[in-house]
Amino acid sequence: MKTFPPLDKAILCFSKLPGIGRRSAERMAMKLVGDQAGLLKDLIAALQGVAEQIGCCSRCGALTSRDQDPCRFCTDTTRDGAVLCVVEEPSDVLQIENAGGYRGRYHVLMGKLSPMQGMGTDQLRLDALALRLKSEPIQEVILALNADVESEATANMIRDLLAGHAVKLTRPAMGIPAGSGIAYSDAVTLARAIASRQPF
Amino acid sequence: MKTFPPLDKAILCFSKLPGIGRRSAERMAMKLVGDQAGLLKDLIAALQGVAEQIGCCSRCGALTSRDQDPCRFCTDTTRDGAVLCVVEEPSDVLQIENAGGYRGRYHVLMGKLSPMQGMGTDQLRLDALALRLKSEPIQEVILALNADVESEATANMIRDLLAGHAVKLTRPAMGIPAGSGIAYSDAVTLARAIASRQPF
Repeated sequence: MKTFPPLDKAILCFSKLPGIGRRSAERMAMKLVGDQAGLLKDLIAALQGVAEQIGCCSRCGALTSRDQDPCRFCTDTTRDGAVLCVVEEPSDVLQIENAGGYRGRYHVLMGKLSPMQGMGTDQLRLDALALRLKSEPIQEVILALNADVESEATANMIRDLLAGHAVKLTRPAMGIPAGSGIAYSDAVTLARAIASRQPF
Repeated sequence: MKTFPPLDKAILCFSKLPGIGRRSAERMAMKLVGDQAGLLKDLIAALQGVAEQIGCCSRCGALTSRDQDPCRFCTDTTRDGAVLCVVEEPSDVLQIENAGGYRGRYHVLMGKLSPMQGMGTDQLRLDALALRLKSEPIQEVILALNADVESEATANMIRDLLAGHAVKLTRPAMGIPAGSGIAYSDAVTLARAIASRQPF
């Protein structure tokens, strides 16, 4: 649908967001442009706030207020500095924090190996990781990467990279998701879940 | 998921958009905040452009550039001034234009009767409609409203209102699924529905 240049641009931007197709993007833009309740202004203000106030921690890469660097995870002395959780994206840190239970520190790679998208080892925060392994008392590195082929390649690459370091390398258990069951699991998930079965 | 105040606000705004749940809103915000390619800046610029450059036509209520009022539909002399298509929202005009085939003019009500949301006859652009019926050579009014109960009530109210006027009152063929609306129809359905409009 052709509309007006700024509206077309907004639709294009929306359609680049995860899970948003062309039609959803159009409906979102139309709701915003026709809204009487000021939702458009609220959204602009919120996004400007995001752009101005939120950045990434210079040490671990997690999201942080621009006036707090290093971030609250890096500076929280009650957290366990011996455990480092490596993730792909800053938002993964929030997901893990939201899940609760983890009290170590983080390191965000800012992506994964993906030659097609121009993501090589130079684009990932690997030098920073090596530096932290030297300067911090890290004993365990948890590779909390995703489960696709590129993330798998990234995990393997990091394993090779850390071969010389005296750190324990772990990754989150793979298995049947909570609330799901055997009947709903795919073959790979099920095979891994059974292979890494736990004492009951 | 609790994040940072501006990010929380952005998530809240996104979740108010049609078809966007809490989880989708979070993923959209996370994509924007973590994006390296400037999508956040592009989206802010586009939305600012929408807020600054797009308004509603003072005559028909359709979306228009702020520097073009009355809008291109009102000023286009090749369009048929004898046919007036009444719609609920400014975005409905774009939908109908996109479907193609209609060459008359428009009148946007800016809503529908909905006492629960405080939308009464005073909130709709009915006086403006009555004024246009007096001053313009309108012979047919197409009520291109949605197919839900509130729109039905709005259509009935407009029929009563136009009882004294010598205009033919029509509505698009019922090709639009009950309970759905103009914004959700595909172009073919919409074009067919308008081409085979029925006496009301």
